[in-house]
Amino acid sequence: MSNYPQYDSIDTVACIGAGTIGGGWAAYFLARGLKVKVWDPAPDAKDRLQVLIDTAWPALTELGLEPGADPHNFTVHTDLAEAVASVGFVQESAPEDLGLKRGLLAQLAAATADDVVIGSSTSGYGITEMATEAQDATRLVVGHPFNPPYLIPLVEVVGGEGTDPEATTWASGWYEYIGKSVITMDREVPGFIANRLQEALWREALHMVNNGEATVEQIDASITEGPGLRWALQGPMLTFHLAGGPGGMAHMLDHFGPSLKSPWTRLEAPELTDSLRNDVVAGCERESGTRSINDLVAERDKAIIAIRKIVDSIRSESVAQQ
Amino acid sequence: MSNYPQYDSIDTVACIGAGTIGGGWAAYFLARGLKVKVWDPAPDAKDRLQVLIDTAWPALTELGLEPGADPHNFTVHTDLAEAVASVGFVQESAPEDLGLKRGLLAQLAAATADDVVIGSSTSGYGITEMATEAQDATRLVVGHPFNPPYLIPLVEVVGGEGTDPEATTWASGWYEYIGKSVITMDREVPGFIANRLQEALWREALHMVNNGEATVEQIDASITEGPGLRWALQGPMLTFHLAGGPGGMAHMLDHFGPSLKSPWTRLEAPELTDSLRNDVVAGCERESGTRSINDLVAERDKAIIAIRKIVDSIRSESVAQQ
Repeated sequence: MSNYPQYDSIDTVACIGAGTIGGGWAAYFLARGLKVKVWDPAPDAKDRLQVLIDTAWPALTELGLEPGADPHNFTVHTDLAEAVASVGFVQESAPEDLGLKRGLLAQLAAATADDVVIGSSTSGYGITEMATEAQDATRLVVGHPFNPPYLIPLVEVVGGEGTDPEATTWASGWYEYIGKSVITMDREVPGFIANRLQEALWREALHMVNNGEATVEQIDASITEGPGLRWALQGPMLTFHLAGGPGGMAHMLDHFGPSLKSPWTRLEAPELTDSLRNDVVAGCERESGTRSINDLVAERDKAIIAIRKIVDSIRSESVAQQ
Repeated sequence: MSNYPQYDSIDTVACIGAGTIGGGWAAYFLARGLKVKVWDPAPDAKDRLQVLIDTAWPALTELGLEPGADPHNFTVHTDLAEAVASVGFVQESAPEDLGLKRGLLAQLAAATADDVVIGSSTSGYGITEMATEAQDATRLVVGHPFNPPYLIPLVEVVGGEGTDPEATTWASGWYEYIGKSVITMDREVPGFIANRLQEALWREALHMVNNGEATVEQIDASITEGPGLRWALQGPMLTFHLAGGPGGMAHMLDHFGPSLKSPWTRLEAPELTDSLRNDVVAGCERESGTRSINDLVAERDKAIIAIRKIVDSIRSESVAQQ
């Protein structure tokens, strides 16, 4: 029997911070039929939040609201203890400042009941380094969303050294319960997974702009007209599994492996050992399941065609309105 | 008056190599109503190519065929001179081996008329280094596609030191004429643009697998459930422009700039100088045009909803069939 609440017993949650991420979380929780108590010290927090929720609501409506979902079912507080009183879960989305997060998480741990898990939206800090001021770190976990949190399913969950493993498990289950796609990491890695990957891409892009190798517009076009059309259905690993033709990832690595030595980015590649090669090949085979390469190609093509049509249609409307 | 042919005068092109990329190009050219002459020394090249074209054809049909497009309107040759005789354009997609490419491009330049441009599908070599054996390098350019070339619009075009600038301009126009999205680079950068960006991401992913920080499946899910849903409509720059809230990229860089010092990837970031900051902000403003951040948010949300529905539907069908 878990020390933490049944998911369906929770009717109120707290959102700490009402910026782009915290406000996006608030909109998402409201759409799931929950009441949301928001803590934000800014005097115009309530108005800004209502604008953010109103902007998000049509999208949330189209994806499906839970019964009772109400875009006005929130309160805004400037007192932290008041904001987290009687809530079943807390999502912290304060500015990305380590000192600030440390103080806030310590206060949140102290102000909440001992069965309330506190998820942090931090983009890259680990709970271990954020929990140094908390008397009780057992209920602190990372629950890292992507922008906009009301539409992007991914939440990366990872505990720290002082986190109760049951609290981490509970948090993963909670995010899944409210409809998120959860990746539970078994160790703290700065930037987690998706941010490490997109940060590598982003840093390479900044180098290119800095060196006059590409413009901002060329960088965006290189993704939206290229690999960006593949990555909604199949990630970078499965993408290269298909690029290998009938031989899949094994052929790809054996054929293109030497290009890992090429100066194609400022990031050095790891040595392509047999062990790494085999891990990557085996992972692609697990992901493929019973689907052949041809099945995967057919799925990919279907997705690219449909996505291209959507993007073309949105761009045409956008141009027509200007 | 250009030394190169009128685009609409071209009715036959050559594809050198009929693997995944070369065969994908052949399918694309056929769909554009062109006749394709394929050079491939493998004894089973014709059969493999027909399978590849037949696999691609439904997708190409759905995106729209040109009048006269015929999936059987190709011939396969083992003699290079025969393959490129009387063609208006050559696309070279041989294996990614520098020595092989050098010899092949030299032969192609010698075997073609002096108004025939030769585009190379190379993933990362520059024309300058690939043209060292060519007596005449003026008509050699990179025309780098993305897999699958019959569906992904992007082609990166860049000439080398010996390339006639008019040939590069002609090639960009040609790829646009046949419906591609072209980025014309004004200098040779190893890996061009999109490959540098995705290679940085891919190398970081390999490091993570290598160090047991993430599994292959977690890496793919972190993209497909996360940033991969945004990148079909808006590239990494515009994505972060929106993540900055009403303040856009300027707010984003001023707020999250310090995280460039964080160990979020193994790739070091450039110094965020005022000049780099201002270039990135200005680029995002040019891309936005007259659209406000709210307009861009609305477009992004519309795209994400539609893309999520497509992906969910393809996944449901896939599961149902297993």
